[in-house]
Amino acid sequence: MPVRLPYPQLRAFSTKPRQCAKFDKFELYGGRPIPANKQRLIPTSGSYPQGFTVGSTRAGIKPAGNIQPDLVIVASETPASGAAVFTKNEFCAASVSVSRELMRHTNGAGLRGVVANAGCANTLTGQAGLDDATAMGREAARCISNGMADNGNSLMVMHTGAGAQRLPIDNILHHLPKLTKTMGNTHDHWLDAAVALSTTDTYPKLISRTFSLPSASATKFSLAGLTKGAGMVHPNMATTLGIICTDAPVTPPALQILLKGAASRSYNCISIDGDTSTNDMVTMFANGAAASPDQPAVDISPEPSVDFVAFQQVLSEFMADMAKLVVRDAEGASKFITIRVRGSPSYDAAHHIASVISRSVLWKTGIYGRDPNWHGILAALGYSLLDTSFAGQGIIIPEQTSVSFRDGAETVKFLDCGVPVPVDEVKIKQIMDKEDIETIVDLRDGTAEKPTEEAVYWTCDMTHDFISMNSGVEIR
Amino acid sequence: MPVRLPYPQLRAFSTKPRQCAKFDKFELYGGRPIPANKQRLIPTSGSYPQGFTVGSTRAGIKPAGNIQPDLVIVASETPASGAAVFTKNEFCAASVSVSRELMRHTNGAGLRGVVANAGCANTLTGQAGLDDATAMGREAARCISNGMADNGNSLMVMHTGAGAQRLPIDNILHHLPKLTKTMGNTHDHWLDAAVALSTTDTYPKLISRTFSLPSASATKFSLAGLTKGAGMVHPNMATTLGIICTDAPVTPPALQILLKGAASRSYNCISIDGDTSTNDMVTMFANGAAASPDQPAVDISPEPSVDFVAFQQVLSEFMADMAKLVVRDAEGASKFITIRVRGSPSYDAAHHIASVISRSVLWKTGIYGRDPNWHGILAALGYSLLDTSFAGQGIIIPEQTSVSFRDGAETVKFLDCGVPVPVDEVKIKQIMDKEDIETIVDLRDGTAEKPTEEAVYWTCDMTHDFISMNSGVEIR
Repeated sequence: MPVRLPYPQLRAFSTKPRQCAKFDKFELYGGRPIPANKQRLIPTSGSYPQGFTVGSTRAGIKPAGNIQPDLVIVASETPASGAAVFTKNEFCAASVSVSRELMRHTNGAGLRGVVANAGCANTLTGQAGLDDATAMGREAARCISNGMADNGNSLMVMHTGAGAQRLPIDNILHHLPKLTKTMGNTHDHWLDAAVALSTTDTYPKLISRTFSLPSASATKFSLAGLTKGAGMVHPNMATTLGIICTDAPVTPPALQILLKGAASRSYNCISIDGDTSTNDMVTMFANGAAASPDQPAVDISPEPSVDFVAFQQVLSEFMADMAKLVVRDAEGASKFITIRVRGSPSYDAAHHIASVISRSVLWKTGIYGRDPNWHGILAALGYSLLDTSFAGQGIIIPEQTSVSFRDGAETVKFLDCGVPVPVDEVKIKQIMDKEDIETIVDLRDGTAEKPTEEAVYWTCDMTHDFISMNSGVEIR
Repeated sequence: MPVRLPYPQLRAFSTKPRQCAKFDKFELYGGRPIPANKQRLIPTSGSYPQGFTVGSTRAGIKPAGNIQPDLVIVASETPASGAAVFTKNEFCAASVSVSRELMRHTNGAGLRGVVANAGCANTLTGQAGLDDATAMGREAARCISNGMADNGNSLMVMHTGAGAQRLPIDNILHHLPKLTKTMGNTHDHWLDAAVALSTTDTYPKLISRTFSLPSASATKFSLAGLTKGAGMVHPNMATTLGIICTDAPVTPPALQILLKGAASRSYNCISIDGDTSTNDMVTMFANGAAASPDQPAVDISPEPSVDFVAFQQVLSEFMADMAKLVVRDAEGASKFITIRVRGSPSYDAAHHIASVISRSVLWKTGIYGRDPNWHGILAALGYSLLDTSFAGQGIIIPEQTSVSFRDGAETVKFLDCGVPVPVDEVKIKQIMDKEDIETIVDLRDGTAEKPTEEAVYWTCDMTHDFISMNSGVEIR
């Protein structure tokens, strides 16, 4: 039976000793056991981009008693190209305003990286909050310049955590000099940074990979990405953040377009609870440190280079992997759901349909009960394009719509060109019992000349645990 | 701890003896006890419009074992004006297609009423389903014409219940003649009809009232309304239906505009789970039976009459009361939430903002935990107008936004013109412990020349019980 906890119920942060966060054995994460199905997602090593250093420390921003690090700097040793995508929420955090202004000012040229904190979202704090975010960015920039005077316009700022609270800015300013003295580029430095970004995450989120570019196939470039779990923290707001670094050379305009393009196929294709955070922000930095002197920078002008096209592919896949790590840690979720909408005349229409399905609370609750609930998919599909620019274009035609669930190579159809199909209940049970579930909505099944655009969305189920975590009402 | 029930989990309909549904003591509703806070919502008498008869019977459409009635006719004894508003879902039920076609054919003139069933939604059944719905409408029309030949174009059709199943049309056709022999206009006839429309409802939904029109202030007209609970039935779809009858005289074009206008301020202002059903439909009939022979019909042409304006007000309030009955029976809900958005330059913008807030799963989950979670309101507000026609019009200005919760005459502000306000925790606890909660978002607080448009939305909280009901995963 649900039991009401004392009001107001703040979610407790963990209080275990710092060394637990080292993950040597991946047993405990900030004092909580890491779920068995999450341990495989934590890397034990990585290939990190050259010329970047990373540091983190505990500055007392996360609640007292929590001993996880909560302050992070990720910085290039040399000026780098920078890019960012921001939440469009009109009540955005100070970090979003300050970083957006930095991008406007610099056009992404000559940046060094980002300073981020978890534990305080710095929203609804007015001019004082903006001043705090600015001071945090400037002091961090001064510190990584070895105390040299800096114009303060080289580091972006990120916040995540509880909203409507001022940053403990004195703590932050006090800890930044020490933090910069411990920066480095080892696996532990990166993993600790991922820990520092965490709030309600059940595991730290870090990936890295190497790649090459067509113009320099012998050169090994690296990509590293830090991110954090989505969902809003009861009773305040958390967020999704992403930090991506590469040692490939990319011009600022190309980097911005690459990031935006990859975000549209990754971070913009995930939904946990359908709410858009005030703090969401993904940044990327490219310093070219792994390039030979004659290596041309990846560029978009006067036209997209071959390297640009290749890198867009690499980055999109990389960021999709980062975004999936976020969904895998959705609050209270028991399933990882892939929604594939195909047969659309445009990517945007398919993406919008997938996004509406991903927000169907009824459908996601059904999946929790291991019910494919394909009627719920159709109900969502049936209203997905109402009041959008796609309405009235005949994109959804019931008689051409098929819905199926996929399990590896095998596909089980529930609806075939608008007609319900008898299904093998045993097979369905096998599919629905799995953690990973994929559903396919084909808008033009069985038609000869078929539009081919396809969009993929990743989401999770809606569970009793989600309600417990976000209401503070616990099941006992 | 949540325990998974055997798959697939169909929600059981009740199996108690028929007489329980009579409600003499309001103790049991189809075998389930009526929640104490719902009993006051069931009328013990009513003032029903003249010239209408109502009948219901069990035709075996609800699952076997259920002995509630499941087939209803509401009919005017004489040809009446008819109007309807329909779901826009592209996978609409056969009833919606058939009734929409009837409206197109007749323009709402010469209608008799509606035949409705619960227990089967008749969705995804193709031409056969359309044929069934047509046959149901024609046979019911034939029966209420005392077996006389009828053109079959006088009754609308409504379905609610499980989707993707054929209607048991033989049962329906078999029971219609008997049903029409028992029709009448007593309180019990109307209440039984409300029972018949129910699916997962915890109580039947019926209201009635009298009113007068400016042109005939001595004449007593009546309005009666039947409706049913919202939310989708696991594992299939249920819906909201509404049937409204009046003995005032109204022309068909006026009736359609009145119904649409009132629906926009009632049924279009409620949200349970954010999903749009395939079967939603509200119909209205006006037969003028209470009017004296010289009473002019309420008309819109050549311009809205005084009676039209007065009746619009009466009908809007009446349908708002019907819609609130639906929200009060939201699946698993523990709170009835009113969202009031004011200070908007347009009603539509305020309505859209309220609708987005009403769909914030995080906010509604917080309310379940008795947390005002006003950050959640702001997060929803902050993204509410993105990608809408209202974007970029400066409707949302953080520095002019206030958020408060109201308890009777008293208002507790959480945000005052963009600035968080210290609040009285004891007072907040009092407010949040109540079943009825009202939140006010003022878009232009403290400004001199203030836009005055205001929209109201009614919704509920998101609870463990909602998850249990829609997943089949029960808490033990």
